[in-house]
Amino acid sequence: MISVVIIGQGNVAFHLNKAFTKARNIEVAQINSRKLENIPLADVTIIAVSDDAIAKVSSKINNSLVVHTSGSVAMNSLKNSTRKGVFYPLQSFSKDKKVNFKKVPFCLEASTENDLELLEKVAKSIGKKIYFINSEQRKSLHVAAVFVNNFTNHLYKIAADICKKQNVPFEVLQPLIQETAKKIKKLSPEKAQTGPAIRNDQKTIKNHLAMLNEHQQEIYTLLTQSIQNNGRKL
Amino acid sequence: MISVVIIGQGNVAFHLNKAFTKARNIEVAQINSRKLENIPLADVTIIAVSDDAIAKVSSKINNSLVVHTSGSVAMNSLKNSTRKGVFYPLQSFSKDKKVNFKKVPFCLEASTENDLELLEKVAKSIGKKIYFINSEQRKSLHVAAVFVNNFTNHLYKIAADICKKQNVPFEVLQPLIQETAKKIKKLSPEKAQTGPAIRNDQKTIKNHLAMLNEHQQEIYTLLTQSIQNNGRKL
Repeated sequence: MISVVIIGQGNVAFHLNKAFTKARNIEVAQINSRKLENIPLADVTIIAVSDDAIAKVSSKINNSLVVHTSGSVAMNSLKNSTRKGVFYPLQSFSKDKKVNFKKVPFCLEASTENDLELLEKVAKSIGKKIYFINSEQRKSLHVAAVFVNNFTNHLYKIAADICKKQNVPFEVLQPLIQETAKKIKKLSPEKAQTGPAIRNDQKTIKNHLAMLNEHQQEIYTLLTQSIQNNGRKL
Repeated sequence: MISVVIIGQGNVAFHLNKAFTKARNIEVAQINSRKLENIPLADVTIIAVSDDAIAKVSSKINNSLVVHTSGSVAMNSLKNSTRKGVFYPLQSFSKDKKVNFKKVPFCLEASTENDLELLEKVAKSIGKKIYFINSEQRKSLHVAAVFVNNFTNHLYKIAADICKKQNVPFEVLQPLIQETAKKIKKLSPEKAQTGPAIRNDQKTIKNHLAMLNEHQQEIYTLLTQSIQNNGRKL
């Protein structure tokens, strides 16, 4: 049995707590980060609070191994005087949507082999995809995640704006959106690239630009150039 | 029974021919666009050639109803002297990947109600999602498709580059990529938006920029501003 304490009330804390409760080899307790006076002893203490609060919360914890769940905070930002680690589930969580942790990559970091093994056991109690990722790598992953999640979603938003202007239902684009994501399971993004930019089809590019507003044109032009230069600066 | 002739040898022609062959109420023939001397008579003649060749190919056809399959070409670019229409399946096709036409939106256009009904019957013989979309709307859809397909795929490519630089396997991002696309089935892109840009988390944005090369920074900055202005110009 591994004892786990989760500190925090956000989406990550909520879903982790729910999953650990069902795990056979885990004994879990969830604690509000404003009530740190009586933290139960635990093998692993998981701080799942906002990035800015991690240092402060961790400084008040004396449990043996303290980890955070953030993609963008270095392991050494933890201010506990005991052992440190990272337990970062790379997925976009919302409270009202069920999480299938079997599909969530767990990015783990610790300073000793023993601690890594312990975190691996904890992760495997609810998940399947385990990666050992150091703080530098995790920071890169976090930026990369902004591109494939935040920025991609914003491209959907621009497409929705374009559709709205011409009274076309956005749902017409749904199958293409799903197919674009699915395609990348088997092909590298480089091989999956299609469209007027990669074909250097100037006529279509010109026609497209003529239909966009100034701001959309700026994004269209920059991304078209980037595709043509394979993601590199001219 | 509706007779259909498909002109062209590309991916769209290939998959349409394959699907129509299995449809009960369609009699189909596929013709090479370089052998237009002996086109069989047909109720619907579908020109599935490159955008630039549509005008020329159509000018040589005397069958009653002639349609093209392009997202970016106006119906009136067809140069046949008989009736005209558009039969645009909005999906990304590759020859070696099976197409489920039940999930493909068919964007139809014609100048008479009768022709629209005929095209609808033809589309319904292989598909389920039928939309009546005029030439202006279709042009907008085509630009929007560039955003959700070509540009989104390029963001995947940039993310892959970032991962590669730090020796992180790109597959770690796969579940997030799939989830980002799935989320949009139920939420509008506006409601689905998360991340440092929409939270105006300057500290994280600064950290991210420090990890990117100049070209990636330019894209990051432009898309971050665009998210913060809800897709509008400052």
